[in-house]
Amino acid sequence: MDGLNLAGIIHHTAAWLQGTGPDAEIVVSSRVRLARNIRGYAFSHALTPEEAAGLVEATRNAVQKLPSMKKNTFLDLAELQDIDRQILAERHLVSLEHAQEGENKAVVISRDEAVSIMINEEDHLRLQVLLSGFQLEQAWQKANQVDEEIEGVLDYAFSPRFGYMTACPTNVGTGMRASVMIHLPALVMSRQLDQVLQAVNKLGLAVRGWSGEGTKASGNLFQISNQQTLGKTEQDILKNIITIVRQIIQHERTARRGLLKRDVSLLKDRIGRAFGIMKYAHIISSAETMNLISNLRIGIELGILKSIDIRLINELFLLSQPAHIQKIERKELTPMERDIKRAEIIRKMLKSEKLQVELN
Amino acid sequence: MDGLNLAGIIHHTAAWLQGTGPDAEIVVSSRVRLARNIRGYAFSHALTPEEAAGLVEATRNAVQKLPSMKKNTFLDLAELQDIDRQILAERHLVSLEHAQEGENKAVVISRDEAVSIMINEEDHLRLQVLLSGFQLEQAWQKANQVDEEIEGVLDYAFSPRFGYMTACPTNVGTGMRASVMIHLPALVMSRQLDQVLQAVNKLGLAVRGWSGEGTKASGNLFQISNQQTLGKTEQDILKNIITIVRQIIQHERTARRGLLKRDVSLLKDRIGRAFGIMKYAHIISSAETMNLISNLRIGIELGILKSIDIRLINELFLLSQPAHIQKIERKELTPMERDIKRAEIIRKMLKSEKLQVELN
Repeated sequence: MDGLNLAGIIHHTAAWLQGTGPDAEIVVSSRVRLARNIRGYAFSHALTPEEAAGLVEATRNAVQKLPSMKKNTFLDLAELQDIDRQILAERHLVSLEHAQEGENKAVVISRDEAVSIMINEEDHLRLQVLLSGFQLEQAWQKANQVDEEIEGVLDYAFSPRFGYMTACPTNVGTGMRASVMIHLPALVMSRQLDQVLQAVNKLGLAVRGWSGEGTKASGNLFQISNQQTLGKTEQDILKNIITIVRQIIQHERTARRGLLKRDVSLLKDRIGRAFGIMKYAHIISSAETMNLISNLRIGIELGILKSIDIRLINELFLLSQPAHIQKIERKELTPMERDIKRAEIIRKMLKSEKLQVELN
Repeated sequence: MDGLNLAGIIHHTAAWLQGTGPDAEIVVSSRVRLARNIRGYAFSHALTPEEAAGLVEATRNAVQKLPSMKKNTFLDLAELQDIDRQILAERHLVSLEHAQEGENKAVVISRDEAVSIMINEEDHLRLQVLLSGFQLEQAWQKANQVDEEIEGVLDYAFSPRFGYMTACPTNVGTGMRASVMIHLPALVMSRQLDQVLQAVNKLGLAVRGWSGEGTKASGNLFQISNQQTLGKTEQDILKNIITIVRQIIQHERTARRGLLKRDVSLLKDRIGRAFGIMKYAHIISSAETMNLISNLRIGIELGILKSIDIRLINELFLLSQPAHIQKIERKELTPMERDIKRAEIIRKMLKSEKLQVELN
């Protein structure tokens, strides 16, 4: 897949952006990631280029033939242009680190973008399943299935005492990181968020911005994940996250009902302004887009914005990112040019839909 | 005219809001005001209540019968509710001071609201002519005509040496204040305004906010008027203002062309955002309204917003003021209730028009 072929992917709605699945009005997506290493190779950071090339070749052949990975796409990251690697990162198919320039890095992506397997990232394999809505258990089932298929053809580095061996000790054990991307505008607006997040931290979960580790929250989106990988089974870890996320969902629902009761004009104002700006503005930064989309999302969920499909919002979310915009334009753009193009894309997408905004 | 009858006036477009007249894309309105006092009475502030009542009665009869004031409306301000006095002030038919509670104050208003004569304000008579666009000379002609008609039936306090005698020495002489309300968004946006206004000040003109003395500029509207009333003829004073205002108009036009050339996206963004917010917001303060309207106004003038009549904008300008909103609602409203109602009025007015916003 060269630069041109990848252009097709940007008009394709990834599985995790379907806007379907349980509690999809609050949980945008659920993700399970497994870190695996192959016996007989040093960890990735210690491989010589030749060994790394061998690792990529060996795992590529194994992964591409898995029953779960029919019609997959294999991408050698060194063969991609910068912009295409960025697109993969913006679509959450590879990590930001994996998208950096470098040899002997690859990714295998399933047709619906639900499964991606990074080769030679921090670990030899990073298997990810990303689904729409609150489907952590289903994501785990799928990841486990692919993992078992791989285990049938490759020899994992595994210690009976510690579990799966990983490059970074924080991943040893299950090698699993489970996370949800959760949209909490009402908790933010009613100033209850800090309290909720503190409780989440105390229960052993980590809270991050929407682009993962080290990124700030924007657009009222938060990524909640387990911190512990050792000394617990996958089922225990999942059960813990699911229980806590259910409680956060309850808090957010209560906060939304409270806002609807007390501050309905304020809500309608925020949602209406966001909609009006997206329909008519000519310069929009990506940070502003995140916030505008957050307001649209809650507007749809509360029935204040009618006839908008949540998928349109998710598409906006994806297409308004820098690399996607430049891919659409087929050229490099300055930040200002991107902001102008972003506004144009948003206007066009909102124009094509017959939208009703409830006024009273 | 009681509280109920006055309700009719708020859906009437005053002459000065027609959006017509020369240079109407920059000069909103032109105003000439004459301060006059009647021989045989002390100045207004020194009158006993009985004398003031006598003054109102005597001048009312004279003014109501003038050939220029056919089908006029006479209003005894003490008989009006607070809200109705505020409406007169918002329509610029009486001064803010004259709208304060008090006995023996009146106003006579011509049918098209172009001429209003305040009785027993700071001076016995304050005759005002207010026209749309840059029509200072025409406003003066009209004021002079009404003034001569009054002089035919009332005996003005006049000194051959000083001219017309007035309560405040700054008005002695011609008793004339001529002013234009001018919209200077491009000079503001291109940061040239201060320079222009300093030059205006040096040339002996005063610059004020749109509600007159002591009010701040908002919505990029400025009132420019003469400071001198003594030692010059009316024609000289008018000629001076007209010459300077013509130069300001040129500066604003040049700045607009510059913005269109250099910052067209920025312009479209401001105009588009203002339009989108007005179409969909649910809470709008009056200060924000002034700025939104300013952006709409320049959008219409530059052809970026199409199919909007400038009269609609002027109506919005008037109807979105606090007293007008409460009059429409027929009840007193808290500031927050007004902001909600204002947004509703604006949404309705923009909905009723078939508007096109040029996108590219």
